[in-house]
Amino acid sequence: MDHYYALIAAGGHGTRLWPMSRAKTPKQMLPLINQESMFRTSVERIQSIFPPEDIFVVTGRELADDLRAEVPQLPRDNFIVEPYAKNTAPALALALATIQTRDPEATVAILTADHHIAQRPKFCQVLESAWQVAQEGYIVTLGIAPSYPATGYGYIEQGAPLGDYNDFAVYHSKRFTEKPDIVRATQFLASGLYSWNSGMFIWRVDRAMKDLERYQPAVYAMCSYLQTAVGTPEYEAKLNDIWETMPKLSIDFAVMEKTDNIAVIPIDIGWSDVGSWASLYDILPQDNFGNCIKGEASDIRVILDTRDTLVFSDRLTVAIGVEDMVVVDTDDVLLICHKDRTQDVKQVVTYLRENGNDDYL
Amino acid sequence: MDHYYALIAAGGHGTRLWPMSRAKTPKQMLPLINQESMFRTSVERIQSIFPPEDIFVVTGRELADDLRAEVPQLPRDNFIVEPYAKNTAPALALALATIQTRDPEATVAILTADHHIAQRPKFCQVLESAWQVAQEGYIVTLGIAPSYPATGYGYIEQGAPLGDYNDFAVYHSKRFTEKPDIVRATQFLASGLYSWNSGMFIWRVDRAMKDLERYQPAVYAMCSYLQTAVGTPEYEAKLNDIWETMPKLSIDFAVMEKTDNIAVIPIDIGWSDVGSWASLYDILPQDNFGNCIKGEASDIRVILDTRDTLVFSDRLTVAIGVEDMVVVDTDDVLLICHKDRTQDVKQVVTYLRENGNDDYL
Repeated sequence: MDHYYALIAAGGHGTRLWPMSRAKTPKQMLPLINQESMFRTSVERIQSIFPPEDIFVVTGRELADDLRAEVPQLPRDNFIVEPYAKNTAPALALALATIQTRDPEATVAILTADHHIAQRPKFCQVLESAWQVAQEGYIVTLGIAPSYPATGYGYIEQGAPLGDYNDFAVYHSKRFTEKPDIVRATQFLASGLYSWNSGMFIWRVDRAMKDLERYQPAVYAMCSYLQTAVGTPEYEAKLNDIWETMPKLSIDFAVMEKTDNIAVIPIDIGWSDVGSWASLYDILPQDNFGNCIKGEASDIRVILDTRDTLVFSDRLTVAIGVEDMVVVDTDDVLLICHKDRTQDVKQVVTYLRENGNDDYL
Repeated sequence: MDHYYALIAAGGHGTRLWPMSRAKTPKQMLPLINQESMFRTSVERIQSIFPPEDIFVVTGRELADDLRAEVPQLPRDNFIVEPYAKNTAPALALALATIQTRDPEATVAILTADHHIAQRPKFCQVLESAWQVAQEGYIVTLGIAPSYPATGYGYIEQGAPLGDYNDFAVYHSKRFTEKPDIVRATQFLASGLYSWNSGMFIWRVDRAMKDLERYQPAVYAMCSYLQTAVGTPEYEAKLNDIWETMPKLSIDFAVMEKTDNIAVIPIDIGWSDVGSWASLYDILPQDNFGNCIKGEASDIRVILDTRDTLVFSDRLTVAIGVEDMVVVDTDDVLLICHKDRTQDVKQVVTYLRENGNDDYL
């Protein structure tokens, strides 16, 4: 696996895990599952394949220092810093263009900073197989074998088999589909031909730049121009200037839904996007009553006749007769939410933003 | 109504309103219903009958200063301070003996510091009628017309009519009954002959001392002896010494269940003992969805699809899909309790005490 690099996209906000996920401490910075941040876990997960100098991170300016402090083993310059968020296409284009200046033959595994992957060795194996497929000219997407008709994810439809790479069956990708309604999601699941789009894919930088040139020439032009400034004193000023003009586009919309020669490797690696308090609850260890009580303090907790409930609190927390609830207790905000309603947390964040209550965001 | 005094028993702990009710700020000190403490409201409620110099308070040493600060209009010496709690019989015996030294012809309305009474004028009227009945030699108890078969209160069974006093029908009291089981409570309610024991009663001090002499001679002897020390430099030392020997007895057990010539006035005055979070919820104003959201801060609150829920919180509180819950958010404790389970808060307090977590009490 020569010239293989990882690029961790760590610019997200994770608003559905509010009030713990905040502007200054977004989801990837939080120790939600174990004692370390999800970002740090995301780096450690791949260290058996990638030495620290081959792991890049793309993120926003306000988070870069905190993220660097989480993984001091990574070289400082491996953090590619966008001035502010412009969705995934500009962020990844900037990062891939930067990596290309270091190694024109680079293949890059684009990974996430705030997802959970239970089966770490299998994940590393699939990254190795994906590298091989990428050398044959494909963009290789990691598709998650769906377990229910989710309406919250994009789907990848698999086409003809492309072959087996080690133990992984690889397919042509026929189509990228945006989040479906429940009827279509149910059809997708029944067909056995669809995977969830995990947002993780393996891409040679030379091909990436060609894809960008073809489908997003403005983005391509600006990133190519920036390549000539990498390492010079003018880089920051040029980046700032260019960034204003960058369109806000997702990488799926900008490239994936338009280009061809995409492969998909459907995998079951115990993946979760930890996209809500309910999905976090699902992956955390629970006691015999289905409760999960988390918090930094060693305070005693008193729980009477309480079931299937998630509590995050550093204070003495007493629950009596509580069922199927999520309780998140932070310094300035208290959230109490039915476990079936945790998607609506996003609405609350939107409401607070629109009403000027940014202190709580 | 010559020689008529009020005595407010303000030594309670209100553990069922934990975690807001604490050792240093028990229930009577809290502004649970309006913007002022329940104790202050209890004093203001009777000011149309009793001038401040005729209102006495009996309480424990650790609370006396805070209670005095709540009602600065009361003379300092009107606070009768027991060294520490010994249940109601010693506290009331001490207080009545003290009042007797000021006025041997006193009639005393013994009232509570932490109950809610919606119909204030009617309450004052019944206190006036009770005074008249007390002059005929009766202990006059205020019985609350029961609205459901409560198992949490003592009951008073009414006997033969004693007559009408103003607009109030007064009866002989046949019997004091401890908290019944649900079967007996249902029978009591159906009979129409039982009132809840509100703990409020009107007693001439001369009769009170006679009752004590007959049924609790040790308590009587110690209180009589203390009467000779009131106002002397030795009072505190003598009180401290005597208090060690005082038995722990409730006034119901010590006297009421034993003596005769008790009258009862069954009344409906919008009374609540505010004995649990659920009973507090019942008397607080609710919005169209049955929610009651209280707290000092003017923080915005976000409540989505939440019904019949009581929230006490000074932080930004977000409730989504919550029903029939009580949420009490204090600096160091968070309580989340189903509205049907608020009696169990007492268990939690007991558990914390037994496990040495006194900081939370």
